[in-house]
Amino acid sequence: MMSPRQPYHARPRGDDRSKQPQRYSKRGPRKPTTTKTTTKEDHVRIIPIGGLEEVGRNMTLIEYKNDVLIVDMGLQFPEDDMPGIDYIIPNITYLTEHREKKVLGVVITHGHMDHIGAIPHLMSKIGNPPIYTAALTRGIILKRQDDFKGSPKLNLQLITKSDKVTVGPFKLEFFHVNHNIPDSLGIVIHTPVGTIMHTGDFKFDYTPTGDEPADLARISEIGNNGVDILLEDSTNADDPGHTISEREVQKNLDQVVKDAPGRIVAATFSSLVTRIRQLVEIAEKYDRRVALDGFSMKSIFAISQELGYIKTKRGTVIDVKDINKYPDNKVMLISTGAQGEGNAVLMRIANKEHRSFIAQKGDTFIFSSSVIPGNERNVQSLKDGLMRHGVRIVHSKMMDVHASGHARADDLRLMLSLVKPKNLIPVHGHHFMRRAHGEIGESMGLTPDHIGILTNGQVALLTKSGKFHETTEIVPSSYVFVDGLGIGDVGEVVLRDRQEMAKDGMFVVIVTIGRRTGKVVGSPDIISRGFVYLRESKELLSEVRKQTREIVEHATVPGEKPNWTYVKDKLRDRLGEFLFKKTKRRPMVIPVVIEV
Amino acid sequence: MMSPRQPYHARPRGDDRSKQPQRYSKRGPRKPTTTKTTTKEDHVRIIPIGGLEEVGRNMTLIEYKNDVLIVDMGLQFPEDDMPGIDYIIPNITYLTEHREKKVLGVVITHGHMDHIGAIPHLMSKIGNPPIYTAALTRGIILKRQDDFKGSPKLNLQLITKSDKVTVGPFKLEFFHVNHNIPDSLGIVIHTPVGTIMHTGDFKFDYTPTGDEPADLARISEIGNNGVDILLEDSTNADDPGHTISEREVQKNLDQVVKDAPGRIVAATFSSLVTRIRQLVEIAEKYDRRVALDGFSMKSIFAISQELGYIKTKRGTVIDVKDINKYPDNKVMLISTGAQGEGNAVLMRIANKEHRSFIAQKGDTFIFSSSVIPGNERNVQSLKDGLMRHGVRIVHSKMMDVHASGHARADDLRLMLSLVKPKNLIPVHGHHFMRRAHGEIGESMGLTPDHIGILTNGQVALLTKSGKFHETTEIVPSSYVFVDGLGIGDVGEVVLRDRQEMAKDGMFVVIVTIGRRTGKVVGSPDIISRGFVYLRESKELLSEVRKQTREIVEHATVPGEKPNWTYVKDKLRDRLGEFLFKKTKRRPMVIPVVIEV
Repeated sequence: MMSPRQPYHARPRGDDRSKQPQRYSKRGPRKPTTTKTTTKEDHVRIIPIGGLEEVGRNMTLIEYKNDVLIVDMGLQFPEDDMPGIDYIIPNITYLTEHREKKVLGVVITHGHMDHIGAIPHLMSKIGNPPIYTAALTRGIILKRQDDFKGSPKLNLQLITKSDKVTVGPFKLEFFHVNHNIPDSLGIVIHTPVGTIMHTGDFKFDYTPTGDEPADLARISEIGNNGVDILLEDSTNADDPGHTISEREVQKNLDQVVKDAPGRIVAATFSSLVTRIRQLVEIAEKYDRRVALDGFSMKSIFAISQELGYIKTKRGTVIDVKDINKYPDNKVMLISTGAQGEGNAVLMRIANKEHRSFIAQKGDTFIFSSSVIPGNERNVQSLKDGLMRHGVRIVHSKMMDVHASGHARADDLRLMLSLVKPKNLIPVHGHHFMRRAHGEIGESMGLTPDHIGILTNGQVALLTKSGKFHETTEIVPSSYVFVDGLGIGDVGEVVLRDRQEMAKDGMFVVIVTIGRRTGKVVGSPDIISRGFVYLRESKELLSEVRKQTREIVEHATVPGEKPNWTYVKDKLRDRLGEFLFKKTKRRPMVIPVVIEV
Repeated sequence: MMSPRQPYHARPRGDDRSKQPQRYSKRGPRKPTTTKTTTKEDHVRIIPIGGLEEVGRNMTLIEYKNDVLIVDMGLQFPEDDMPGIDYIIPNITYLTEHREKKVLGVVITHGHMDHIGAIPHLMSKIGNPPIYTAALTRGIILKRQDDFKGSPKLNLQLITKSDKVTVGPFKLEFFHVNHNIPDSLGIVIHTPVGTIMHTGDFKFDYTPTGDEPADLARISEIGNNGVDILLEDSTNADDPGHTISEREVQKNLDQVVKDAPGRIVAATFSSLVTRIRQLVEIAEKYDRRVALDGFSMKSIFAISQELGYIKTKRGTVIDVKDINKYPDNKVMLISTGAQGEGNAVLMRIANKEHRSFIAQKGDTFIFSSSVIPGNERNVQSLKDGLMRHGVRIVHSKMMDVHASGHARADDLRLMLSLVKPKNLIPVHGHHFMRRAHGEIGESMGLTPDHIGILTNGQVALLTKSGKFHETTEIVPSSYVFVDGLGIGDVGEVVLRDRQEMAKDGMFVVIVTIGRRTGKVVGSPDIISRGFVYLRESKELLSEVRKQTREIVEHATVPGEKPNWTYVKDKLRDRLGEFLFKKTKRRPMVIPVVIEV
């Protein structure tokens, strides 16, 4: 049954949207509903299965009857309370459980991990359909695929911004947008019931570097032809004004490099190809050699160079180990690690563990990237460590040496003015940002019933009559964790155990029991890690052994078969209480009973 | 031997300052030096044992011969990589190992945890000397002491800003500064060799609310009398300009409250007494009742009220469970939890787990505090959770509803202009901030040899001739962890184990061996947590059991006493490798051998 649409800001208190989990550990994944949404009218279903409650794992399904088109297939980096997890990928249960649905194609908007990262994990599960994407994005996808032996050969279809592609019932067009990686595309999807437009990640830059400005005329033309639903990037919706131009960044970087008395270390993400290109251009202008460090930096640089997105003069690029062969004011090191990651290049330099680069007075370190929320402390620690060597640090709080790749509030207003969509679905970003985006939509004249603040997995409909319906149908969208070689095999229980052990450690008590006597044989063994120093806790341990013996012998009656589950529960509870009383800590207590 | 002083920015590459640990887990605590600093001249030793590489655990020793005066005794909240740790306190090994040193008194500048938090843990270890502090600070210290049964009764000496106190060879004067808690004091310490001034945490507020402006005339007078060394707050040295006035904050808060159509929830730290006072005043102005929620909020509010720092009309304060008895536009809830803490009031409201407060459209939530670095994600998640209920959120990015309690660059310049110290030691803050503070000192005419960018534990001298010496003597300052009832019993090993188990879990293999036969009895037991779901890994486990049996039986020769250490090492290595190969995870492998 289809539910009547309600404006998002007028929902009653009991609205189950409020139950949507933000963090699995607190509220568990939102239960998918079983009610199938139906309407008599011909319709397209739009299902964002990731990217709406987070920054990351972007993936949207566009479904007409049983034909499905996918936009993006990204990963999300784990939160603090997900120890050991490598990353999170979108949940495709809906597709694997509905075998009648056929994925005809995947369109990838650009080459960032939050848009391409789940490709190696998911393609084989959805029948390895063709992937449509631009040249640089294709190069990065192919390179990453090398790390996943055994995954199928991808069917990558190269597209350019002027191409038109037909994928089953969907007719696709593309348009050029600015972002901080070249070849970023927006998509227009003409469906049998209406037109959907997806901006991808974007910003408007009237004076970009090494790129053309976003194609306003083309976007306007698409708008004039009629757009029923616009899915638009919300990442910076909360920030007022316009995103600054890369030209401004380039000017500032140029000044810093020009003034630097010695070596330069420019730290950024390997994925910010636009920034890396700028740095190389400036280095060449001031006759500096460029060394690259960091695995992903070297790898994406190589692809970008190969495909012509970064051009270097012969001899510009040198090996990092040769950096000391040149005068200090003739070199620039471009590296990863600006987030304070433990083993990345910058932290190794700070800790004097880098093989070829010893920081010294006169060095200038440029932090040309934003700090990912949650990394602030590590970045602070990194800066402290570097500064102790007497270096100078330039970061974006001091000077605009970085620009975001995402549209701010006024940029979003411009896009809405050009496209004039009938309906707006803010995508890419937390609820908070998407609500701010919704308010921008309202300020541009859209009424709340034409703005869809969805949750992950929530199905929206576009009907033949151009109407937009936000349904109550929710398809599965809970986290799928990738940890080592395992996908989805680390669930809530495993994570909860990790968290528990991280907090106060674990405490294993092993009791050996004589099968015939029912008596404890020898002294119980105790293994504990992360709790207290055992050597300094002899009294505590001898008391634990004594209690263990008592509990076991009290619970076993000679001649009767003991209820070991009961005995173990008793041990767990009583020893747990005892340890808490003595230490105010709650290690995970694990009793083991061995009969001999 | 005293080392010659070098300007901090001209140190050679190999300077051991660069080895100073930022994070214990990466480089371990800096080794204290054994060389005793001596000088023929009469001198005072200044030893900051905490607060210089972090924000927190502030504590400085001022030592003349064997007489010691302590300024502040704070705690530090743990970093992300210290799971389970409650907090960190200053390391007083120097005092406990030098019994000839006598602590004559402790001066506490103000009532925040990073200045008072270690009092219950340390006072009994240094002979419980008198504590000199102002009224509100005393009240807060006494209240906290209630939570530590068995700690000795404190000898608290009440002082006011106009008092003069003699403590052995030290003559103390005080001066009024602004901060975001009343009764914040700066200290002047006249010693036999010269005058030391300590600002405590401070800002200049010409138009404070419920407080007097910092006493510029008095500070200027102190400066005119001559200050040899100024120890000054560096927390905001990195921020240009002046810190905004509390009057501005009050004006903005007033506007928000005036315009709010329904209930108001104002979230801040319980320790920001100035802010809480403002909120109560505004609530009364608009005829709103005030409910308080959060343990520390209620507790500090009660002390502040009792001592007259917060005044309320009869009937203003209501119980939080009565909040629904009043019209929505007649109530304000003041609560903790603005950092997104898991079980605090605000998160419970977001998760619909609060007993008396169900968030609804029309509610206005004011976040009136800064976000502590590292909490950004949790705060984002909290805001998302609240917004899903349709509430409006006002935070300091949108409007100045919060002001920092710390001086910015221009405020520091003003202090330096008034005091005209001969030497400057930036305190309170990371190396990065203190370097920025040092640059401010230079911009005010101090030469680098008069600016001491110290590390924790580093001894500085002031000699009779008014000279400042930064020595190479380092007293112990490594982290002392408080975890439950234990102080200092969680060390690096325990923490490393917690981190390791958090990452990939643990894997215990228990082998029972017949003493006579040397053979494995039965099937090895396996206990694993946080690694993989055991139920879904039967094949993996049966292979582990098989390998275990092989390794043990290969290593034991019938009739000979086996080397169990060797067998266990073998098991740990081989099974660790095997599990990594199969899963790309590295659980902590713990082999247990039981002979029967």
